[in-house]
Amino acid sequence: MITTTANLELFLETRKLTEQICEPLETEDFVVQPVEFVSPPKWHLGHTTWFFEEFILKKHQENYQIFDEQFAYVFNSYYESVGEKVVRTNRGNLSRPTVNRIYEYRKYVTEALVEFLNENEISQELEEVLEIGIHHEKQHQELLLTDIKYILGNNPLLPAYLKSFDENRIEKHSHQWLSIEKGVYEIGKPEDGEFCYDNEKGRHKVYVNEFFISNKLVTNAEYLEFMNAGGYQDVLLWHAEAWDWISSEEIKAPQYWHLIDGSWYQYTLSGLKVLDPDAPLAHISYYEAFAFAQWKDMRLPTEAEWEIAQEKFDWGQRWEWTESAYSPYPNYKKPEGALGEYNGKFMVNQKVLRGGSVATSPKHTRCTYRNFFHPNLRWQFTGIRLAK
Amino acid sequence: MITTTANLELFLETRKLTEQICEPLETEDFVVQPVEFVSPPKWHLGHTTWFFEEFILKKHQENYQIFDEQFAYVFNSYYESVGEKVVRTNRGNLSRPTVNRIYEYRKYVTEALVEFLNENEISQELEEVLEIGIHHEKQHQELLLTDIKYILGNNPLLPAYLKSFDENRIEKHSHQWLSIEKGVYEIGKPEDGEFCYDNEKGRHKVYVNEFFISNKLVTNAEYLEFMNAGGYQDVLLWHAEAWDWISSEEIKAPQYWHLIDGSWYQYTLSGLKVLDPDAPLAHISYYEAFAFAQWKDMRLPTEAEWEIAQEKFDWGQRWEWTESAYSPYPNYKKPEGALGEYNGKFMVNQKVLRGGSVATSPKHTRCTYRNFFHPNLRWQFTGIRLAK
Amino acid sequence: MITTTANLELFLETRKLTEQICEPLETEDFVVQPVEFVSPPKWHLGHTTWFFEEFILKKHQENYQIFDEQFAYVFNSYYESVGEKVVRTNRGNLSRPTVNRIYEYRKYVTEALVEFLNENEISQELEEVLEIGIHHEKQHQELLLTDIKYILGNNPLLPAYLKSFDENRIEKHSHQWLSIEKGVYEIGKPEDGEFCYDNEKGRHKVYVNEFFISNKLVTNAEYLEFMNAGGYQDVLLWHAEAWDWISSEEIKAPQYWHLIDGSWYQYTLSGLKVLDPDAPLAHISYYEAFAFAQWKDMRLPTEAEWEIAQEKFDWGQRWEWTESAYSPYPNYKKPEGALGEYNGKFMVNQKVLRGGSVATSPKHTRCTYRNFFHPNLRWQFTGIRLAK
Amino acid sequence: MITTTANLELFLETRKLTEQICEPLETEDFVVQPVEFVSPPKWHLGHTTWFFEEFILKKHQENYQIFDEQFAYVFNSYYESVGEKVVRTNRGNLSRPTVNRIYEYRKYVTEALVEFLNENEISQELEEVLEIGIHHEKQHQELLLTDIKYILGNNPLLPAYLKSFDENRIEKHSHQWLSIEKGVYEIGKPEDGEFCYDNEKGRHKVYVNEFFISNKLVTNAEYLEFMNAGGYQDVLLWHAEAWDWISSEEIKAPQYWHLIDGSWYQYTLSGLKVLDPDAPLAHISYYEAFAFAQWKDMRLPTEAEWEIAQEKFDWGQRWEWTESAYSPYPNYKKPEGALGEYNGKFMVNQKVLRGGSVATSPKHTRCTYRNFFHPNLRWQFTGIRLAK
Repeated sequence: MITTTANLELFLETRKLTEQICEPLETEDFVVQPVEFVSPPKWHLGHTTWFFEEFILKKHQENYQIFDEQFAYVFNSYYESVGEKVVRTNRGNLSRPTVNRIYEYRKYVTEALVEFLNENEISQELEEVLEIGIHHEKQHQELLLTDIKYILGNNPLLPAYLKSFDENRIEKHSHQWLSIEKGVYEIGKPEDGEFCYDNEKGRHKVYVNEFFISNKLVTNAEYLEFMNAGGYQDVLLWHAEAWDWISSEEIKAPQYWHLIDGSWYQYTLSGLKVLDPDAPLAHISYYEAFAFAQWKDMRLPTEAEWEIAQEKFDWGQRWEWTESAYSPYPNYKKPEGALGEYNGKFMVNQKVLRGGSVATSPKHTRCTYRNFFHPNLRWQFTGIRLAK
Repeated sequence: MITTTANLELFLETRKLTEQICEPLETEDFVVQPVEFVSPPKWHLGHTTWFFEEFILKKHQENYQIFDEQFAYVFNSYYESVGEKVVRTNRGNLSRPTVNRIYEYRKYVTEALVEFLNENEISQELEEVLEIGIHHEKQHQELLLTDIKYILGNNPLLPAYLKSFDENRIEKHSHQWLSIEKGVYEIGKPEDGEFCYDNEKGRHKVYVNEFFISNKLVTNAEYLEFMNAGGYQDVLLWHAEAWDWISSEEIKAPQYWHLIDGSWYQYTLSGLKVLDPDAPLAHISYYEAFAFAQWKDMRLPTEAEWEIAQEKFDWGQRWEWTESAYSPYPNYKKPEGALGEYNGKFMVNQKVLRGGSVATSPKHTRCTYRNFFHPNLRWQFTGIRLAK
Repeated sequence: MITTTANLELFLETRKLTEQICEPLETEDFVVQPVEFVSPPKWHLGHTTWFFEEFILKKHQENYQIFDEQFAYVFNSYYESVGEKVVRTNRGNLSRPTVNRIYEYRKYVTEALVEFLNENEISQELEEVLEIGIHHEKQHQELLLTDIKYILGNNPLLPAYLKSFDENRIEKHSHQWLSIEKGVYEIGKPEDGEFCYDNEKGRHKVYVNEFFISNKLVTNAEYLEFMNAGGYQDVLLWHAEAWDWISSEEIKAPQYWHLIDGSWYQYTLSGLKVLDPDAPLAHISYYEAFAFAQWKDMRLPTEAEWEIAQEKFDWGQRWEWTESAYSPYPNYKKPEGALGEYNGKFMVNQKVLRGGSVATSPKHTRCTYRNFFHPNLRWQFTGIRLAK
Repeated sequence: MITTTANLELFLETRKLTEQICEPLETEDFVVQPVEFVSPPKWHLGHTTWFFEEFILKKHQENYQIFDEQFAYVFNSYYESVGEKVVRTNRGNLSRPTVNRIYEYRKYVTEALVEFLNENEISQELEEVLEIGIHHEKQHQELLLTDIKYILGNNPLLPAYLKSFDENRIEKHSHQWLSIEKGVYEIGKPEDGEFCYDNEKGRHKVYVNEFFISNKLVTNAEYLEFMNAGGYQDVLLWHAEAWDWISSEEIKAPQYWHLIDGSWYQYTLSGLKVLDPDAPLAHISYYEAFAFAQWKDMRLPTEAEWEIAQEKFDWGQRWEWTESAYSPYPNYKKPEGALGEYNGKFMVNQKVLRGGSVATSPKHTRCTYRNFFHPNLRWQFTGIRLAK
């Protein structure tokens, strides 16, 4: 448990970073939602603010004056127990409240929260809600970047977000198979006072067989080999659902790849670039990760294998797909109430990703962090680390 | 045929009015497309401009410098023979080009066209293209207003567009059935040099039986009677397609009507108002117009009946649904090329509307004007005039 | 009005013919519904029987013992005011009642009705219901044949229905344009005591301009020319809805045409045959009829033109698409109650077809008969007669 | 590995049982496919036969005369590498081949296979294909029963399949929590020569924490408590996907439950019965199993837990949902070719079920058997065993 002072600093730093992320945008960029799983940037700005207002100020600040009664309706997300919400596919249809108005809302709530923290004795329970609110906003910082990439990267003009944004750090060391002994290991977050999400808690034993895991992420060049060998055309490499998906969506390459006059380009946050063969592959679905591994006659690691082995390699550039379907850890108990709905959401049909990415907010991820997405999604900076 | 000077004035006046219509908007309002048949205001701004660039400047102005090569792709609409286009449902996903950039585009093209018209001998054919371009923009002015109403009227905050906008002019004269003798009449636009669309041309004879037509539009109060009598629940009043539509869309009232604490309100361009019982009904589908007439044991007029009788009543407040399905007039010939595609589009499954509305651009409609929409659409200012 | 005796004979003859149509079928053929607008043959057998039970026996025969209470639920069609029904798309999911059981039902109702007619004084109103019931069954005889063709013609084994069934009568006379003077004509059924549907009634005047109409139907050879000239690829020939339809359904030829090793074959009720170039074209949608006419620089006749000219040419092989959208005749009044729902159904988005076809039941059609279908449907024996 | 003679007997016994299962059916029952995941009984009859023809007779019997070339097209299922197939949703549209013709096909192939086995030296590889073919048919025997239940149980007449079929064996012993020590255990099929599917192979170690598992299945009465307590209305008990599913499908009870005049009935293979409160619950989805466990403040076992504990309780009445998503065992290798496609299909988004059911074919299941279905499916005899 961090002290309130430390959290206050983290809070202010986080609020500021969210707005810095949005600085390069035009007003129009804040508004659109080209696909259901992407949210308009202005919604992220409002939603992260609403969280502090709803769970701290409304409940604990005496005589708190709500900024706008209707915002709860507009900026709630999936917390079905807190009240009616604008359904997700409608978020991109809302031109109001305007971006300026949402910035006023942010300022109002930030200042009210600072005042509240300074003037009150903060209970441990409230401290925890504050921490979750901060990390919730950090999570949305990554979504902001990936949603912005989707919005600009699906515009026919392909505008750059920020010329200086560097998505790719080339791994220069030579390839090696790291070997892990069979045996009983422990995974999950130890109780060390550091913040973590509920789903990481409950450190517990697992048995793993001997396995080998790569010390490098798969590169664009390696994936191109798979493509050139007809990987997308070989039904035997794909799950049935995956085959339907690549057929109906006409998937033939990772997201943001463009074949122009016979050469591969990649849309990045710094604009359209010639594909760098040595850069770590990004923006592939679990299905593609699986088919690639199948083609190599290898496999993806389980999340337990990944966590056990992770000290031996660098990670944090790409969210690494694992073979594990998301499922609560043994003896997991869902917290009560709306925060529980946020933190203890049941997940089905989702695959766990481990690590972090170039878009992950500073101080947000850790080696026990369990990210999860449906197996067909690829607008996050997802990548592949092979095992065998 | 109007002279070039007259058209030049009309051109400038029209360009200006389009921008005046947009003045009350926030930047964010220009971007969204809440439903497929509504276009973002910035698309209307660009598309009407593209028309002049594509069909006049590109083809006839020597050394014309295109403003932006990619705009043809973004702002083309359904002219399938002119090249690839951004599909309609995607228009609301495009944050770029920005609104400011589109205003620059408008200025550039307007100035280039003025220069072109001033410095060249204009052929009659080109004069006609210019006229169509102007009326095309006038048509989009009405769509702009109705699309803006849809965008703001489907926002949970229900913001007003313009406090002073008056949608309703109450018809104060007493109700009367106008009687028309049976016989052979002529309908269609006479060749009098005045501008009209191709589909009005070819004045021709029709035979009509004796009929009666109302001298007033149906009011909100009359329609409420139908609602209160269970009109939306009586399957025998509705077309099969209509019944499926009101069931699946849960239609229980005209668009923009809200039942709040037991009283009916109406969202208007000047904001949410208590429903005025005496105002002419607006925003109903053909299906609703038909069911209402059926319930009254009356019917809608055909377009021929409407045109024959129209001198005897005031019109222009509401687009009046007729019983006639849109179909070309006898001996109609579709013009050639892309302009033909615009002007001579084949229509099926659409009902003709006659008259005009409070949102129709000045000098745009006339008694032979044939508007048409699918029978379930109701975001235009549509209304009912009964016949029997 | 025909006497009861005459109607009794027509009734028995009609009941028998329905069963004769089904004789060549296997039990399995009675069950399936490959597409929503096709009904399983056993449903037709039951539904036509249910009509007599529901509207005559149940209401007028004292102490009538209903055959099976649940059949009303299974065999009702779209008469929404008579009670719950098995939704149309579910008809093909019902293996019970068995075919044998339905034949028992037919026998039971036929015998009960004969007894009822023999032993009672029949009012004129009841006589009319009887007549409608007979013609209703005749209508279903044509649907039976076309539904059977769809069921067998979409089976990969392409089994023949009846080797001796001849779909095509070649028109051997030379082509000629029949000329019709402009002027006021009368159309609609005269009140001559002959049976007709309500929608033909109300003989009334129409004005037509001078026009020319073909004395022959379009042949397969003529349509092949259109196909070979790229008709299905030229967007300018098609309605917008039609273009979406041929694109999404991948329509490239009339229904039942198969290109096998470079030659065109046609599935017919007598099996797969080499396409006969001289036979009248069949199984095209209104959209295709329109595009073909457009390509020929001609048009389809209106229904008034067709009716005025029909004495001058042979008809009855193909239902001939007209340009007219279905709409009630002037002063049409919908009958009351469930029979009214059957007979006075409101139609929208449907095009009128005139004439009749090789599948039409004997004594069923006439020159004032108004058939109608949605413009994309083509499983009926539809064809083209050009006008200009 | 069983000897050929033993397999020959098992083969004949299996072929016979399939046909016995179909004896109570009417011809019409063989044809329909009310929903995509159900296949028409005649398809099962043909498909299981096609397997032996395709993988044994065609490949290994010299001069084998194929029964009908087109059957490969009609009766292939998802073996995408063997050639074009009738898509699954179309199976119910095919009235031909007739049931009689398929029985001839069965006889032909059964006799040809017996002759082949009697007259040839059978390699071990072929022996394995034969065994898989037999177990493949056994699997389809269970699907036949559950598909028949779906077909008859969704017919408004609710006909019984077989009056003597008993679905429910009441567990009379008292309830107890079985306790399992934490530690390393082994799961998966040992190499003992007994037949098993590839996905059970690779016996391997797992670590489990201490847990408790019920010695009884959940009963109808217990589930009714959950329903009466508002279980289907409490969003916090359900996965997000589950909530969408129960909302859009209007799920309010297990499949085949009917509320008639205030009492619960259950459609069973022996017809409609009053719900037996003591019978083990059947026909629930994983989502419902999970929500029920959540409401009890317990959970479902993992498949490892189930396998470790199974010796201590009776199983085989219901397929028991586990919390485990299906995933290949460590070091699993997919077999090559079309048989590999059958046996080594990659699965995603499916939950493992363990045990067996009253519809499972004799000698078909075992304690290591891994069944799997999408979490919303419930037409199998699925049930719940709680753990904590």
